[in-house]
Amino acid sequence: MLIVQKYGGTSVGDLERIGNVASRVAKAKKEGHDVVVVVSAMSGETNKLVGYAQHFSETPSAREMDILLSSGERVTSALLAIALSEMGFPALALTGRQAGIYTDDVHTMARIEHIDNTKMKSELAKGKVIVVAGFQGITEDGTVSTLGRGGSDLSAVAVAGALNADLCEIYTDVDGIYTTDPRIEPKAKKIEKISYDEMLEFASLGAKVLQNRSVELAKKLNVNLVTRSSFNDNEGTLITKEENIMEKPIVSGVAVDKNQARITLRGVSDKPGIAAEIFSTLAKNNVNVDMIIQNVGEDSSTNLGFTVPENELEKAKEIMLELNAAAHLEFDSDIAKVSIVGVGMKSHSGVASRAFETLAKENINIEMISTSEIKISMVVAEKYSELAVRALHNAYEMYK
Amino acid sequence: MLIVQKYGGTSVGDLERIGNVASRVAKAKKEGHDVVVVVSAMSGETNKLVGYAQHFSETPSAREMDILLSSGERVTSALLAIALSEMGFPALALTGRQAGIYTDDVHTMARIEHIDNTKMKSELAKGKVIVVAGFQGITEDGTVSTLGRGGSDLSAVAVAGALNADLCEIYTDVDGIYTTDPRIEPKAKKIEKISYDEMLEFASLGAKVLQNRSVELAKKLNVNLVTRSSFNDNEGTLITKEENIMEKPIVSGVAVDKNQARITLRGVSDKPGIAAEIFSTLAKNNVNVDMIIQNVGEDSSTNLGFTVPENELEKAKEIMLELNAAAHLEFDSDIAKVSIVGVGMKSHSGVASRAFETLAKENINIEMISTSEIKISMVVAEKYSELAVRALHNAYEMYK
Repeated sequence: MLIVQKYGGTSVGDLERIGNVASRVAKAKKEGHDVVVVVSAMSGETNKLVGYAQHFSETPSAREMDILLSSGERVTSALLAIALSEMGFPALALTGRQAGIYTDDVHTMARIEHIDNTKMKSELAKGKVIVVAGFQGITEDGTVSTLGRGGSDLSAVAVAGALNADLCEIYTDVDGIYTTDPRIEPKAKKIEKISYDEMLEFASLGAKVLQNRSVELAKKLNVNLVTRSSFNDNEGTLITKEENIMEKPIVSGVAVDKNQARITLRGVSDKPGIAAEIFSTLAKNNVNVDMIIQNVGEDSSTNLGFTVPENELEKAKEIMLELNAAAHLEFDSDIAKVSIVGVGMKSHSGVASRAFETLAKENINIEMISTSEIKISMVVAEKYSELAVRALHNAYEMYK
Repeated sequence: MLIVQKYGGTSVGDLERIGNVASRVAKAKKEGHDVVVVVSAMSGETNKLVGYAQHFSETPSAREMDILLSSGERVTSALLAIALSEMGFPALALTGRQAGIYTDDVHTMARIEHIDNTKMKSELAKGKVIVVAGFQGITEDGTVSTLGRGGSDLSAVAVAGALNADLCEIYTDVDGIYTTDPRIEPKAKKIEKISYDEMLEFASLGAKVLQNRSVELAKKLNVNLVTRSSFNDNEGTLITKEENIMEKPIVSGVAVDKNQARITLRGVSDKPGIAAEIFSTLAKNNVNVDMIIQNVGEDSSTNLGFTVPENELEKAKEIMLELNAAAHLEFDSDIAKVSIVGVGMKSHSGVASRAFETLAKENINIEMISTSEIKISMVVAEKYSELAVRALHNAYEMYK
């Protein structure tokens, strides 16, 4: 097999840990696999460099930031290659440029445009382990670029795609994706396989293991992603295309997002365009609106409710007061969004009603509902959120 | 004027000092000059990275070492460019590759082969300050290379040559080149101008301001070098071609090297090839022999004396005992080499005899002598070395 392994900042956080990563790579080589490793900077390095730059400027040039920030991954890649070679596994460190990772020229937030895999292929053919500095590439005019937060994951997925790798393993400090947060529900189980689409819903719901950009790219390039821990030998979670998952659970997991706040407008004048004005003004001010519900009120006015991230509530409040769009305004940050996700929902009816019944049985009032093909989200009072998670986890037998 | 300014590790040792460097560059820009800056890594960074690599291997791959070591200068160049731009002086950081510095492929000790100045020229034409990451270049096949110790000085000189700069200023923590060590002779004076050849003799005598490689390159490229301090506004020392120095002093300075040891072989059998065998064996074992004297002895044997660096004495001892080349062996590490250097010697006679008289007047015995066109070196007992320096400094009126 050709395996791409990506190790994040905590996995290469000090020299001892880099040594452990080398042993892990060596193990894969001993098992007969070809290995390409993608590494992040040692944890803390990138933040240190950002701090340095901010000492000089609040708005440092993005081009120069990229020269600055790309140095951390170079250090890790060189050290890991040195460690591997010393252990008898000849290894070659490649910078983003040397690995042929070409990006657009949006410095500090570049997108990978294509990968020239010539160098990697020829070195793999020689039996070498390739250690690629993650997070970085090169623009067409030869300037260093970086890919933004989570960029090393993107590097790994893109490299796996370009080399048609069998597997792309993303190593972090957690074992994989769980059916729900084990701190809330001790019966939470690690998910063995999950589809790209389910993972995308999970990530947007606050599961912070993988960023959506990486999952989207993996889906596009049809890369089999595995997320697992670099600190133990446990099997991780495979994120793959739906067709590869034989037994599709109706509900794969339940997620909770407590960083939500609700705004309710009572007595909105029922004239055309008022909702559009509200939401376009919020968008213009970079307030992210998530769920929206609208009820017809008693007279000619309506009630309008929507949720925003908790840390954007103050800004949303100001905008609402300025717009003066409703007779009464209510704000509530003591809410949580509980969501169940599962590809099986597509082919099963009654999934939603069981969720509503489950919460009703626990006397939990559902304040808002939104659904997609593979997800049902419910807003409840924050104090009930853990209970709601446990009840749903149990109702769909996710512990099995 | 087009000025290349090079700042070493202590000059960019922390963020505050990088800020000071930015102010100094800004000053040159305000005076109407075009400026290219070459920077080292922040002091301590390179040693830290070397330590990291040695954690994994005593003989790390040179190619990977170069990816590792080249990161420090990238950080400094980006930070300085950010600081300058914030101050209103648009600046561009260039890595060795982006600056067009091509080297051979002897990793960690590469030699600059040529510089493609296109990018630097076009950016200078736009009025930008260019900040080049020193110490690094790129091989013809696109791998990062580094130039070895003192490499940033070499980068600066080579860039100055490639751009036909009017001046190449090397900033360190000392004011320039002195007629002698001011700690020995308080009347030591800073030298205003000195020729390349004199500087080369000084450097080999232990004046550690500039490495010989840089001076040799400056001589070859006809670059006017200035060495000065980044911590004050004092004028430095100009190192230039002899023709540019109108008034040539007979003696420019006096240097002392205490890290010398002498080996004396008494009763060397006077057969052909014995001296050749001794010195070729020493050379094979990487012992650097400096001065050599040979006297005809009383019978058919001769006496042979030579000096080696003090830290190579033990190795030299072993070799001499093994060769068993002489009846008696003497070792003396309590010696010092005192040298006077000056282009004026070429056209003045009597310079040497005045030196010998001066030391004789102080009752200092001269144990060995060697001379070149512009240098006279004398070995004396180490305890007399300071007195010898002061006496010579005075005799040639270097305080003037």
